[in-house]
Amino acid sequence: MNFQVAAERKIDRNEDFIQKAESLKPTLKKQVTKPINLVKTVEDPDIIHGWKCIVTEAVEKLVEKDYGKGDSFIVDFGQHQVGYVTLKIRAVGSPPDAPLHIRLTFGEMPVEVAVPFSTYNGWISSSWLQEETIHVDVLPETITLPRRYSFRYMKVEILDTSQKYRVAFDEISCETVTSADNTHVPKMNYQDSELEQMDRISIKTLEDCMQDVFEDGPKRDRRLWLGDLRLQALANYETFQSNDLVKRCLYLFAGVPNEQGQVSANLFIAPTLVPDDTYLYDYSLFFTTTLYDYYEATNDQETLEELWPLAYRQVELALERLDERGIVTDSSTWWAFIDWHEELNKQAPSQAILIYTLRRTIRLAELLDESKKTYLELKLTKVVEATLQHLWDEQKGFFVSGDTNQVSWASQIWMVLAEVLDQEENRILINQLFEQNPSIGMNTPYMYHHLVEALLLIGDQKKAVEMLRTYWGGMIKDGADTFWELYNPNDKAYSPYGSHLINSYCHAWSCTPTYLIRRYGL
Amino acid sequence: MNFQVAAERKIDRNEDFIQKAESLKPTLKKQVTKPINLVKTVEDPDIIHGWKCIVTEAVEKLVEKDYGKGDSFIVDFGQHQVGYVTLKIRAVGSPPDAPLHIRLTFGEMPVEVAVPFSTYNGWISSSWLQEETIHVDVLPETITLPRRYSFRYMKVEILDTSQKYRVAFDEISCETVTSADNTHVPKMNYQDSELEQMDRISIKTLEDCMQDVFEDGPKRDRRLWLGDLRLQALANYETFQSNDLVKRCLYLFAGVPNEQGQVSANLFIAPTLVPDDTYLYDYSLFFTTTLYDYYEATNDQETLEELWPLAYRQVELALERLDERGIVTDSSTWWAFIDWHEELNKQAPSQAILIYTLRRTIRLAELLDESKKTYLELKLTKVVEATLQHLWDEQKGFFVSGDTNQVSWASQIWMVLAEVLDQEENRILINQLFEQNPSIGMNTPYMYHHLVEALLLIGDQKKAVEMLRTYWGGMIKDGADTFWELYNPNDKAYSPYGSHLINSYCHAWSCTPTYLIRRYGL
Repeated sequence: MNFQVAAERKIDRNEDFIQKAESLKPTLKKQVTKPINLVKTVEDPDIIHGWKCIVTEAVEKLVEKDYGKGDSFIVDFGQHQVGYVTLKIRAVGSPPDAPLHIRLTFGEMPVEVAVPFSTYNGWISSSWLQEETIHVDVLPETITLPRRYSFRYMKVEILDTSQKYRVAFDEISCETVTSADNTHVPKMNYQDSELEQMDRISIKTLEDCMQDVFEDGPKRDRRLWLGDLRLQALANYETFQSNDLVKRCLYLFAGVPNEQGQVSANLFIAPTLVPDDTYLYDYSLFFTTTLYDYYEATNDQETLEELWPLAYRQVELALERLDERGIVTDSSTWWAFIDWHEELNKQAPSQAILIYTLRRTIRLAELLDESKKTYLELKLTKVVEATLQHLWDEQKGFFVSGDTNQVSWASQIWMVLAEVLDQEENRILINQLFEQNPSIGMNTPYMYHHLVEALLLIGDQKKAVEMLRTYWGGMIKDGADTFWELYNPNDKAYSPYGSHLINSYCHAWSCTPTYLIRRYGL
Repeated sequence: MNFQVAAERKIDRNEDFIQKAESLKPTLKKQVTKPINLVKTVEDPDIIHGWKCIVTEAVEKLVEKDYGKGDSFIVDFGQHQVGYVTLKIRAVGSPPDAPLHIRLTFGEMPVEVAVPFSTYNGWISSSWLQEETIHVDVLPETITLPRRYSFRYMKVEILDTSQKYRVAFDEISCETVTSADNTHVPKMNYQDSELEQMDRISIKTLEDCMQDVFEDGPKRDRRLWLGDLRLQALANYETFQSNDLVKRCLYLFAGVPNEQGQVSANLFIAPTLVPDDTYLYDYSLFFTTTLYDYYEATNDQETLEELWPLAYRQVELALERLDERGIVTDSSTWWAFIDWHEELNKQAPSQAILIYTLRRTIRLAELLDESKKTYLELKLTKVVEATLQHLWDEQKGFFVSGDTNQVSWASQIWMVLAEVLDQEENRILINQLFEQNPSIGMNTPYMYHHLVEALLLIGDQKKAVEMLRTYWGGMIKDGADTFWELYNPNDKAYSPYGSHLINSYCHAWSCTPTYLIRRYGL
């Protein structure tokens, strides 16, 4: 993977904005949870990733058992947890005459507690695999692990005790953390139990990603990414309504643009606020659309006014990437995200996201700066014309992208959302997309979200619900407690990282069914 | 190894004694030390355990280097350390977008940082191998490891960072701990630089074992064993003079005898005072001799009077093990220690230790209880007679032990120390021992100490010094910074645990050259 890394860069820190973000830092709600069952992993080729967990006993039996070198057990917390684990351990037999050495492995999915992490050979850091090896010098001991884990299953392996003692576990618990407040979620009268379940799992996914910022995934990257923030914010307005958390995240991004004024794709919050050196064309524009959505949801005029110059600046910078024809310049680096797809060309979808953003920026300019509105409208007209002239292939009936005139699902979906064609033409385009099914497909719930939203935009609620049932419903059938970062129904082992062991199985950008169901009354 | 384990046992807790021990708990002296060099391990068949460390650069160069996945380095602190390690780590490159995963390995000897611990296949717990695997979520970070390590070398392996960043180490340090006070050690005018070095290394060994109790070894078992305590106390009287620490340890043992009144072979101090369920014939008797030595060194009448009943009780219990002939009953369990030696029969040396103890108990009884003195003198006469009648083989000119009439070094040495024969006969016995060199030899500095003391007892100072030079001097030539738990010059890979990786290389019972040199004016 070719990251775009700026070796030397200057950050234009806005301490007022950073201070404002700091003042909006939420208090985490904590709750102590306990495992429900002792389980074992069983290989099953019909199950996603080949492994399932089978209940062996209720967790109450744990206290009666003791374990020696080479023994292991798995506890199942019954649902997804994000928090801090405590184990109460005692020695059985002689006084412990050597340290206890144990390995703890945390899995959101059965495969993570079934397959040794030593088999991992993906290209992103193996340090994301949730595992700790610990020595305990003195027993009995109550250990609270200092790191936060995201998991449902926890495997405990006894690496060694001594010949004179074994160990027993009197209690295992997790103090879960989230900044989301369940009591704020509006009650719904569901028409359909599958959609009800989808809504519930979406909300749980969002809840577990809501920490002191909106994280993309509590397992990985545990980080504030703009692409995730945009969708989390939309889901949040319909559910937890933690609007100050959206505001905080917007101010965090606004606190550390680079010296050109571009907002980073993601931020590191600790030990100090630092923008990542990854800058993505689409994600920077989503700063603007996220501000737009925030204003729509809150009518917070003060924030809009304060962040407007930076929101406008993202559009200016995006326009600077247009070539003389008015088309976004393509390149081979990681300049835009769009979707996890090795072969996907990013040009046409990026062009569409520019148009999508321009439309929303114009509406903000109406409220704030009439002169910019005129300028933006002119630009919009030109960019749309250029798009139709250079990216629309009349013969194929598809938008094309890049040197090879690639036809992808992503390009068509974003062009629909950008409303480059009229409503009827969009409807034809989407139908043709499903009929011809171009080979450059979709790999993430993030991209599927945009497909469903495109279907809703053209008024095809039936097909939208069908997609929800097929895709997110598919995840549920495949065992999801929270929605996953990656899901390709045709290639369930898919991972852009080289191993599904490292995939995140509670991922912010997958939480949108609750938004789609509630916003569009599905 | 067949441990003697009492499944059900009652401890006769003496809270006054425990409270007295607690009040004598020393304050640990702390000092911050830093590594001196970056080193690499090099295989060398001529070096003990096959590995040596070669300096590559001064440690000042460390700060200029950075490390990525798969890299490693070793720092050498220049001498043995016991303490808490701190690492100051920063990221180099992009902001760290994944946790840092590192493994730290601590070695008293080069082999420990050269050979992977995964190769360890000994029978005692692998949990003693000093290694930690740590995830660091946020960088820069200053990490202080919570566990205490005993080491000279520290290896740092970078298990993973990410493709976007590497790590650098701005500082590595160790806060060493000991309760020994160097300023109390009497200055010496050495006649001989080899003995001077031996004295210095002995003192360093003792110092590193002096924590809030006299530990046997700061790497392993980090525990208060009576056999070690006895020798540490002797070395301590000549050097640090932390006599209250000896007193504390005596009161700890006295605080938790079993319901028969037997003192355990070793104690666990944390989380609460618990005697190990290992009871050893020789070690229980050493409670009495250690009290004797303590009184000799301190004239502390109050302690002597308080602990006398328990000291006397150890002798009573030992006498109960005599058979109708007056010989200590042998058994195949781990009932006496004597030395680490698979084939060594423990009967005759145990008989000798009983006699050795009886002689000293009689001297204490003279001070405290005339009636017991008479009784003990009677017993001594009988036991000595029985020994000569049943264990002395006139034809062989050796003491024999067990059913097979085993002739061992240990039996002869302890019989000399027990003064069963007269001075001249002892001299002949020792000479014959060296000449005939029975195959059941010695494996530990603990046993060699008794050989040297036996030589000094018979007045053969020349041979005693020769043994010091050969044995402890041999360790120095083989690279000892502190004296080792195990050393067999004829089998340098020797370990009673199945692997020299787990041997302790700073061990209390090896610290006695300073006692022998200073006490006997060598």
